[in-house]
Amino acid sequence: MALDPADSTATIPIFADRIRRLAEQASRSGADVILIAPGPDLEYFIGHSIGSHERLTTLVVPAAGPVRLLVPTLERPGWAGAPVESLDITISTWTDGQDPYAALAALLPPGAKVLAVDYHMPAVHALNARAMVPGSELTLAGEAIAQLRMRKGAAEVDALGAAGAAIDRVQRRIGEWLRAGRTENEVAADIGAAIVAEGHARPDFVIVGSGPNGASPHHEASDRVINPGDVVVIDIGGPMPSGYFSDCTRTYVVSSDGAELPAKVREVYEIVREAQAAGVAAVRPGASAESIDEAARSVIDKAGFGEYFITRTGHGIGLEVHEHPYMVAGNSIALEPGMAFSVEPGIYLPGEFGVRIEDIVVVGDDGPLLMNTAPTELTVVGSAG
Amino acid sequence: MALDPADSTATIPIFADRIRRLAEQASRSGADVILIAPGPDLEYFIGHSIGSHERLTTLVVPAAGPVRLLVPTLERPGWAGAPVESLDITISTWTDGQDPYAALAALLPPGAKVLAVDYHMPAVHALNARAMVPGSELTLAGEAIAQLRMRKGAAEVDALGAAGAAIDRVQRRIGEWLRAGRTENEVAADIGAAIVAEGHARPDFVIVGSGPNGASPHHEASDRVINPGDVVVIDIGGPMPSGYFSDCTRTYVVSSDGAELPAKVREVYEIVREAQAAGVAAVRPGASAESIDEAARSVIDKAGFGEYFITRTGHGIGLEVHEHPYMVAGNSIALEPGMAFSVEPGIYLPGEFGVRIEDIVVVGDDGPLLMNTAPTELTVVGSAG
Repeated sequence: MALDPADSTATIPIFADRIRRLAEQASRSGADVILIAPGPDLEYFIGHSIGSHERLTTLVVPAAGPVRLLVPTLERPGWAGAPVESLDITISTWTDGQDPYAALAALLPPGAKVLAVDYHMPAVHALNARAMVPGSELTLAGEAIAQLRMRKGAAEVDALGAAGAAIDRVQRRIGEWLRAGRTENEVAADIGAAIVAEGHARPDFVIVGSGPNGASPHHEASDRVINPGDVVVIDIGGPMPSGYFSDCTRTYVVSSDGAELPAKVREVYEIVREAQAAGVAAVRPGASAESIDEAARSVIDKAGFGEYFITRTGHGIGLEVHEHPYMVAGNSIALEPGMAFSVEPGIYLPGEFGVRIEDIVVVGDDGPLLMNTAPTELTVVGSAG
Repeated sequence: MALDPADSTATIPIFADRIRRLAEQASRSGADVILIAPGPDLEYFIGHSIGSHERLTTLVVPAAGPVRLLVPTLERPGWAGAPVESLDITISTWTDGQDPYAALAALLPPGAKVLAVDYHMPAVHALNARAMVPGSELTLAGEAIAQLRMRKGAAEVDALGAAGAAIDRVQRRIGEWLRAGRTENEVAADIGAAIVAEGHARPDFVIVGSGPNGASPHHEASDRVINPGDVVVIDIGGPMPSGYFSDCTRTYVVSSDGAELPAKVREVYEIVREAQAAGVAAVRPGASAESIDEAARSVIDKAGFGEYFITRTGHGIGLEVHEHPYMVAGNSIALEPGMAFSVEPGIYLPGEFGVRIEDIVVVGDDGPLLMNTAPTELTVVGSAG
């Protein structure tokens, strides 16, 4: 659930307001109706989301008129007690053997021709819905939905703060598990358990990129045995019981019995650290998303490692670990208070190692609000002593 | 992976043949190109599937001409060594900051106007691809893909047989875990571990529906404490390392210190058992999918419990736990050798209990081939002795 379901006095008005604003967006964008499939969008608007891709479940939000929810009869019991019942949303069902798209068509506002669907809706549902309404046109409601979801309210910022604190506790404990002689998979299993122990609903990703594996930004974990002196990227996160995600990266060096750190490791690490701090420092209302990318990238470019910073600088975060807005060249959207995203520049040296540092930042009225506070100083772990 | 990746001599020709037949389907159905997103369809055609819904990954299969794969630069390393490299499929990449749909448009056959997408493709990708090609039309390739995936080859039937044997071993061990005084969740946790121990890659679903919970076909597991004499529906399965799924349901009665079983439990159980056997017995080439539903349903109807059989009789199974063909009224498709699906009638008595028995069946040349052989006799478990 997105917000504390026990506190319906607080949450029901929030959901009602989100749905009202979605209907306004539909109206403004020329859509007659917005259809939302199970997933984070449904969770955002009505606080509950169940259903497979196979049997049609969809929220029907007309530009004007009552909101309805269509669910398979089989799954109707799973909606009992959900906030939707307090939101004056009528639940309709369809049963195996009936045509779910005919059932959907019967719930559309009269004369609806422009059907807007959320980003995640499987093509089978979107195109079959269109086919059921002669002369209808299919558009994406994703942008309109992102406009709402991007701007986090106070309860959402609190949820992101709790997620950040939980993953920070795991990062502060990395020295318990990361040492030479263990495999990345062994370290990842311990981290995964700690992610749950520190308050997450589940681990969503546990990247342990040691040595050359750290040079591939989306490497997960492998049977590679970690060596003394390895540089290791640890990028971890998952959803909290609130539904909101954590996501934090730190890069560590594994102890090599007191041997001095190679100059190149120190140099690259400090460049990334400076770039990450520059990206965070650039966050303020009115700054463009691409300016955050530029602020971090220019540090790495100037240091001569620009060709090794092969990703965008950040992604929005909330009920999904990657959502709008994206901190990337070409995204000129102006940041507003409440927007939440990662700042995570890196340098990836093929065959050698990678360094990435990532914090989640919320745009505050005057500048960045950091959701992560685990230290970013270069940390050596796994000393024998 | 769908098939043994170590045995590329055997698997590469299978993938090549599937892709060739998909291109033929495209041509026959009037599509200029078929686009396939990550998921079971991609797994089926090229033996490997990675990628999120967020960054566009798609296989591009033109009605005529070379097949291409578009992946994010970031994820390119994950495709190294995949069968796709032995299939003469060119891999193209797009990088954060570029428009992935422009990159896709450049890979389409010249003049392509009819773009067919797989069932699972998120609407954001399907509609943005359409927008990139002026005058183009979007259709579903799902039916064409299902036509191929429905008809299992010998290696796939072997994989389903191995999955069935593995889940049968778990069903035969249910008495180790299911007894009065434990919660459904406790029993489910033990079953989940056994599903892995018996050879699955992971558990996908573990339904423990005790007493009245068994009357909700999609109840999963709860904190309900199991009572002596409870009727308990155990519906379990998951993917094997091959990628192929198991799915088997048995209904048990928990021991009540020698008390006689209520007549209603015995009666309902035997009706479901007879219905399930009738559904299986009706399986043969040329029979319609709906005739399997009818064969099972008529037994329950005649016994006077028709209103409590609230689901279809079965679903196809393979690289997805639910796929075509569906055994449901209105589906007149004629069964062919190699088609694989569940036969799982049930009786669901609200507030009382449910009974469901499910086997996976493959259509053989002369009749049904059973993938499950766990006994279907009414079994009492959890005796104190």
